[in-house]
Amino acid sequence: MAVGPVPQSNGASALPLVRQLSKDHDHVLKSFRLLISDLCQQFGGGHPGYDGAIGMAAIGVALWRYVMQYAPHSPDYFNRDRFILSNGHTCLFQYAFLHLTGYKAMTFEQLKSYHSDRVDALCPGHPEIEHEGIEVTTGPLGQGVANAVGLAMATKNLAANFNRPGYDVISNHTWCMIGDACLQEGVGLEAISFAGHLKLNNLTVIYDNNQITCDGSVDLTNTEDINAKMRACGWDVIDVEDGCYDVEGIVQALEKARASQEKPTFINVRTVIGLGSKVEGMAAAHGAAFGAPDVADMKRKYGFNPDEHFVISDTVRGFFQELPTRGEALVQQWNSLVKQYSAEYPELGAEFQRRMRGELPSNWKDLIPSSFPDKPTATRASSGLVFNPLAKDIESFMVGTADLSPSVNMIWPGKVDFQHPDLRTTCKINGNYSGRYIHFGVREHAMCAISNGLAAFAPNTFIPITSSFFMFYLYAAPAVRMGALQHLQVIHAATHDSIGMGEDGPTHQPIELAALYRAMPNLLYIRPGDSEETAGAWIAALEAKKSSSIISTSRHALPQLKQTRREGVALGAYVLEEADDASVTLIGVGAELSFALEVAQQLKETEGIAARVISFPCQRLFEQQPLEYKRTVLRRHQGIPAVVIEPYAPNGWERYGDAGINIRRFGHSLPGKAAYKFFGYETGVMAAKVSDYLDRLEKGEWQRGEFVDL
Amino acid sequence: MAVGPVPQSNGASALPLVRQLSKDHDHVLKSFRLLISDLCQQFGGGHPGYDGAIGMAAIGVALWRYVMQYAPHSPDYFNRDRFILSNGHTCLFQYAFLHLTGYKAMTFEQLKSYHSDRVDALCPGHPEIEHEGIEVTTGPLGQGVANAVGLAMATKNLAANFNRPGYDVISNHTWCMIGDACLQEGVGLEAISFAGHLKLNNLTVIYDNNQITCDGSVDLTNTEDINAKMRACGWDVIDVEDGCYDVEGIVQALEKARASQEKPTFINVRTVIGLGSKVEGMAAAHGAAFGAPDVADMKRKYGFNPDEHFVISDTVRGFFQELPTRGEALVQQWNSLVKQYSAEYPELGAEFQRRMRGELPSNWKDLIPSSFPDKPTATRASSGLVFNPLAKDIESFMVGTADLSPSVNMIWPGKVDFQHPDLRTTCKINGNYSGRYIHFGVREHAMCAISNGLAAFAPNTFIPITSSFFMFYLYAAPAVRMGALQHLQVIHAATHDSIGMGEDGPTHQPIELAALYRAMPNLLYIRPGDSEETAGAWIAALEAKKSSSIISTSRHALPQLKQTRREGVALGAYVLEEADDASVTLIGVGAELSFALEVAQQLKETEGIAARVISFPCQRLFEQQPLEYKRTVLRRHQGIPAVVIEPYAPNGWERYGDAGINIRRFGHSLPGKAAYKFFGYETGVMAAKVSDYLDRLEKGEWQRGEFVDL
Repeated sequence: MAVGPVPQSNGASALPLVRQLSKDHDHVLKSFRLLISDLCQQFGGGHPGYDGAIGMAAIGVALWRYVMQYAPHSPDYFNRDRFILSNGHTCLFQYAFLHLTGYKAMTFEQLKSYHSDRVDALCPGHPEIEHEGIEVTTGPLGQGVANAVGLAMATKNLAANFNRPGYDVISNHTWCMIGDACLQEGVGLEAISFAGHLKLNNLTVIYDNNQITCDGSVDLTNTEDINAKMRACGWDVIDVEDGCYDVEGIVQALEKARASQEKPTFINVRTVIGLGSKVEGMAAAHGAAFGAPDVADMKRKYGFNPDEHFVISDTVRGFFQELPTRGEALVQQWNSLVKQYSAEYPELGAEFQRRMRGELPSNWKDLIPSSFPDKPTATRASSGLVFNPLAKDIESFMVGTADLSPSVNMIWPGKVDFQHPDLRTTCKINGNYSGRYIHFGVREHAMCAISNGLAAFAPNTFIPITSSFFMFYLYAAPAVRMGALQHLQVIHAATHDSIGMGEDGPTHQPIELAALYRAMPNLLYIRPGDSEETAGAWIAALEAKKSSSIISTSRHALPQLKQTRREGVALGAYVLEEADDASVTLIGVGAELSFALEVAQQLKETEGIAARVISFPCQRLFEQQPLEYKRTVLRRHQGIPAVVIEPYAPNGWERYGDAGINIRRFGHSLPGKAAYKFFGYETGVMAAKVSDYLDRLEKGEWQRGEFVDL
Repeated sequence: MAVGPVPQSNGASALPLVRQLSKDHDHVLKSFRLLISDLCQQFGGGHPGYDGAIGMAAIGVALWRYVMQYAPHSPDYFNRDRFILSNGHTCLFQYAFLHLTGYKAMTFEQLKSYHSDRVDALCPGHPEIEHEGIEVTTGPLGQGVANAVGLAMATKNLAANFNRPGYDVISNHTWCMIGDACLQEGVGLEAISFAGHLKLNNLTVIYDNNQITCDGSVDLTNTEDINAKMRACGWDVIDVEDGCYDVEGIVQALEKARASQEKPTFINVRTVIGLGSKVEGMAAAHGAAFGAPDVADMKRKYGFNPDEHFVISDTVRGFFQELPTRGEALVQQWNSLVKQYSAEYPELGAEFQRRMRGELPSNWKDLIPSSFPDKPTATRASSGLVFNPLAKDIESFMVGTADLSPSVNMIWPGKVDFQHPDLRTTCKINGNYSGRYIHFGVREHAMCAISNGLAAFAPNTFIPITSSFFMFYLYAAPAVRMGALQHLQVIHAATHDSIGMGEDGPTHQPIELAALYRAMPNLLYIRPGDSEETAGAWIAALEAKKSSSIISTSRHALPQLKQTRREGVALGAYVLEEADDASVTLIGVGAELSFALEVAQQLKETEGIAARVISFPCQRLFEQQPLEYKRTVLRRHQGIPAVVIEPYAPNGWERYGDAGINIRRFGHSLPGKAAYKFFGYETGVMAAKVSDYLDRLEKGEWQRGEFVDL
């Protein structure tokens, strides 16, 4: 059972691939399948997909035993191959291989906790990034494919920027396992199309083609020619006919994929769901445990003792036992490569180390302008003023747009596109893999899911920045969620927020979307009110190294406000104008922050009402402040009612306000100013509403605690 | 300028297609392009896409003048061809043709109001369904393709159920115009794949292939072989090389598409963006008006007077003038066909009329069980008990699932799948176009966008029902939004809500998603608490003929509560248990409704605290009630604090509660009961929290109006 030399990625090895495949495959595969069956059976199953794990056993053996370059005892080895289980419901497949290949955290006891009520289990219902050996959290289908594209792009970018002749310090391959669903979900299809465009030859997608989903045969819903479709998208295609037993055939396919020179590779592996069980090849195998009698029958059929459970024989242990040693050899070899590299290229080496540590340049805040021109400026333009000097110098920024470059202002002087260099000759498109500006196309969902992959390569080695209109972050919401869930620092520059974006109308006016992102855990939704607050928004997003952020900016010009402070943004909300004798607090937000100031002025001048004004760019940051600070800002505990001014659905503002000038219907297609007028966002109208509200409150027509829509 | 005989759909005409194409095309096309340029110029432009309108002029002439079957003076003619502008930002294209072809509402004055601040304009920034001649609202890219698939399915289903030999009462074709983006967006790709599977030969997608998006050349982001990709997806492909001038070639392609016997057709039309302007073929043509000098130059080049604006010559008027007459002839011909049909098939005829009126059978409520078994039942199962008797009898229900048939319980006895009948022989899949159960595959987004298309065929002629896990309605959110925005009655049966869904973990536990849907205008998000409330939820959703709804149900069994009433759901919230001397109101919701009752019981027994309990299945329905009713339910104005119990983000509940037992982080992978325990949803724990809150409130540590997270 000799293990061959460590292969280099992309066929770059100087050594021939000599490998003697084990004769133990049959026993290992049967043992693996029975282990999975026992694991599911113990708690009555109920979780779909483990049958997929049974079908995929031979693929797993080929990957973990022969092909993948990784180190079980050094799970964070920087140049490891990345493995993504996009069909995450088959997670037992990965958990079992993590155990067998020697990941220390994945003890046998932990493996057996799958579906138990153990709170600290490492075997949740879908793979989770927090755990050793898991590259990204998967489960919502199609996300993993896009994550894999991002991981492969990360490798390409690091390699283009850091590798030098003789020093391939980055050379890893990305392997992505998918099921039928990942080829149906739009986000998967977007990512596949984009990966083909980018010619990511360091990416291999392995299709567990069992032709069964929950509803039954895939033919119920999908009868396309998938191989032809993948070729049309710019992928190489390899078929494996016997994916259940032919480990050698799978190994050959995987090695051919790793050696691909021009394109990403799609390996179409025919497998059988629930192999060996009574529901073999049937949809019934998808969603429930087989039942004890069927598992016993499987054991008898395989020549195993039906009364023994969770058996991992010495042969099976032996089959995998050299992997940790091989892994450590790989790590040492790479460590000495990096050491020599750093000696030969000290500056590059230091930069490489900094990137691996996930650090920003120490002077990064100095790159942000200390002040801004005192003229009306759209915050999307302010965002460019703040961001582009950062992007120019900070190599970890990977900046993408979903086809809105002219609108989002994220182009810095000298930016280079991330593209395959061949496009220069074939399409007159300039760029190469060292570039950091990504034209994602009109693929918002894949943009964000791919950015999660970039961020997941290693903590903060990349800081992906996406950009689009705020409304289209509804298309991307599942990926934005996955970024926040995984504590990935991904920053979404969302422009054209509020009804102020105007003519595009109700399809583009994000009335209710902020409610989603303000409710989403670990996500900072920040609406800055002018250039100064936009600086604060970027600082807050960049300092939140374990959170995703959305910086939500206006299409239209906003006045520069004297009272704003960038430091205020980090507090979530802060006082813009205090008034000791205040009768009301006006809460201003983002593009409409100046409205609050204007209304306060009008109330004072025409009604003699003293109003204080607070700026409230980010609810989540405010919630992180101590109660005392929150009370100082809001002063509602002193009996001062607060009125929120924001042309969004009020949902969530009821926590901070007693009344709101909000919108509870969809928008209207009108030029921005006319849209504001149409919805009553004129100073006089708003001031009258506030004044009337205070009257009624005093008369007892309204009670405190009843949120009133003005 | 003879107009040929009215062609029948799908090549079914008995008459040969004799048609003499006009010699005025050159003049008409130039006039159209200049008209568009003038319209954009008048308000300074600024809205992307009209350049696309210029490039697409010849396609429009071919469609509206020669090929499409419609009636400008009877815009709601039931058997009209449907035209969808999926690249909705080119809306001026459609507005101008609606004007030229004689739609009465689209006066010249209205047409010229594009981008003005006229509040009642019929020319919003994207097409809107409310306006004459517009089939669906478009703008968010890719949606229109999926809508078109739904419209074509609607035709197929009606035809299969109602047409009889010699009586093709439904025979219309669906035409969908798309740009580059619709082929990049995931929802478009999902819909394309599904339409190919269904072999919708009554659907034609026309690709305005100008190879330019906002960022520049499409090659920046997409270099796939689109024709090969479409063929792999089961589509016929027709190329048109000169899409700018070759009206005859386009007409031939369109007619070939209409005559397709087996597959949907993709017509790849090469056009040039901003044709004739200085930015012809450039991305700069995408996003801004040309400027007055360039428009004047275009006019000179075309031999028009540069000083004249908005010119529609007699030749142009004459070119389109016969269309209203032709349309009315079409309507009369169809009316008499339906009359004869109704005479020959009186029952079918009556049913057809009822469907056209969008009515439910008068006895529909009687189909719902009047009571339910008194045993713990998951509300997803309750939903089946309520819904399947309805679905069995109500032919307007089109019921789809995103590959979760075994989980969502929407299969009624004798259901027939909506499938192409050929699949019976090729794949052993049973079904035909008369079927009403749709296996959408793992394509949540397309499922909902296609359902919008089904609903848009005619008001309430179809009531589409979708189903999936609640969390995956985040994937579908842009389409759910478009349904609500268009006042389409689409009902989404969302199962596995709350953390009670268990092991699948944080990727599947919808902590923050309800906040989105509660904020979304015209969308009823309903969480029923037991079978009785589930009946109420379906009734409310079915009675909301101009709203979309989400019925959000549990995976796990819930007790049947004696206090619940189906009529209560329509009120949004209602009192379950009153207590005159109450110290607190507990708000219970959906799967956790029984928790509120249990906590009240415990408070009473162990602390002597009187608690009243309200059930709160739907915030939006509650908001529709009069203030007096709302106060009667909440009683907060009487100083009784309210505590919300729901394992979701609290956002929005602050309107109704003073404190909440909610979740402000992502979930955790544990079996359902263990997940509840992990997050503190145990009766004793919750009762202690409420009691402690009341103490602190009394002591003044907390103030009313400060929402407290318990």
